[in-house]
Amino acid sequence: MVSKSQIKLITGLAQKKNRTKYGLFIVEGIKGISEFLNSHLELDTLFTTQQIFRAPSAKTQEITEAELKKLSALTTPQTALAIFKILGPTAPSFSGLTLALDGIRDPGNLGTIIRLCDWFGIEDLVCSPDTVDCYNPKVVQASMGSITRVNISYMPLHTLISSVGGVPVLGTFLEGENVYTTKIPSNGIMIMGNEANGISEDVEKMLTRKINIPQFGNSSKTESLNVATATAVLLSEFRRQENY
Amino acid sequence: MVSKSQIKLITGLAQKKNRTKYGLFIVEGIKGISEFLNSHLELDTLFTTQQIFRAPSAKTQEITEAELKKLSALTTPQTALAIFKILGPTAPSFSGLTLALDGIRDPGNLGTIIRLCDWFGIEDLVCSPDTVDCYNPKVVQASMGSITRVNISYMPLHTLISSVGGVPVLGTFLEGENVYTTKIPSNGIMIMGNEANGISEDVEKMLTRKINIPQFGNSSKTESLNVATATAVLLSEFRRQENY
Repeated sequence: MVSKSQIKLITGLAQKKNRTKYGLFIVEGIKGISEFLNSHLELDTLFTTQQIFRAPSAKTQEITEAELKKLSALTTPQTALAIFKILGPTAPSFSGLTLALDGIRDPGNLGTIIRLCDWFGIEDLVCSPDTVDCYNPKVVQASMGSITRVNISYMPLHTLISSVGGVPVLGTFLEGENVYTTKIPSNGIMIMGNEANGISEDVEKMLTRKINIPQFGNSSKTESLNVATATAVLLSEFRRQENY
Repeated sequence: MVSKSQIKLITGLAQKKNRTKYGLFIVEGIKGISEFLNSHLELDTLFTTQQIFRAPSAKTQEITEAELKKLSALTTPQTALAIFKILGPTAPSFSGLTLALDGIRDPGNLGTIIRLCDWFGIEDLVCSPDTVDCYNPKVVQASMGSITRVNISYMPLHTLISSVGGVPVLGTFLEGENVYTTKIPSNGIMIMGNEANGISEDVEKMLTRKINIPQFGNSSKTESLNVATATAVLLSEFRRQENY
């Protein structure tokens, strides 16, 4: 049985202000919930229509499909919905390459980028305050559990850059050096810009190097690469240079 | 003024069977429409609330915002909607690397992959018949006009592979050769598999080589890379090997 106040609390977690207020976020779907249960994140409550999870019974509530539908933001909710506690970020370690995002707005892009960090072993992801919230349900879903394995923090990028100090700061620009023939530094910060406007002016001033992914088509009409695919290319090239 | 039969025809184009029946597809938004008007594709009709396009006046119909709303699939329609004629694909040229998709279902993934082909100069994209239709409005939108510059055809992949004959056929598998240390052939077919199930069994039997994008994280828990980001990594590495 789900109470009215539970429904109100949980549906409210679709909004960032409520996630911040209660320190909680939503995970939907069997696969996602299993990944989070196996992580270091703490379960608040698991609502499920079937007993298929290894979760503490004190924190598990069996519900009906009709009740799940009331809690879920999905049009076809999938068996279960869990509430986890938001963990404050540990301070970035700044060992190796740190990825920084300057105003990424699309939840799918952020989720994909978190997944890429996990795949390519990037430990620290720093987001500007106007980047979409990483506990947004769509980001959580797109990140496929990778969000539990990447240290994500939010801070102004000029604060990040001044606080580290002295390491190379890279950004992608058309006039930049060819990424395939220039060395991406083993220690440094790589900044990816907003979907429509790229890297903001005040951050551009703080860059120490500009790099570019060359275009190979015959036409020069192609739009820029999507920010998530550009991130894939850059992180792949970084690891190739480091290891092979 | 938009007639009832026009509304019926145009909203019907959201479905593949109607696109095939009438040989027409929808493009929405100023940017997308401009790209298509500058391409080799033939305009059928442009519906617009503002005269901002260079389109033949005989094919342009000024409409009100209320009328646009009736035609559009978007919740906030953007100034104009255009109907273009579907062009039959020219036969793949098989010069260079051909990308082939085995059952890609997500329109956003297909749109992103088309954009990547355009960026990395891949001329021919061949899709298995169960791949999402490239004239699906969501694919058209995600491809950002790149769809006008890549030659896309649909055919069973075993037909493709047998008809070319003799060229290397590559697919991505965990046990494959490291893509960073193996040479991707200049001429060949690279196959990307379905989001959930990868490359189908009958296509796997026809592969001549298996390749792999190594994982660098500490954990071995990461899900596979998303198919669009994996395509980005492979096409980038292909061009790097060819050119640098």
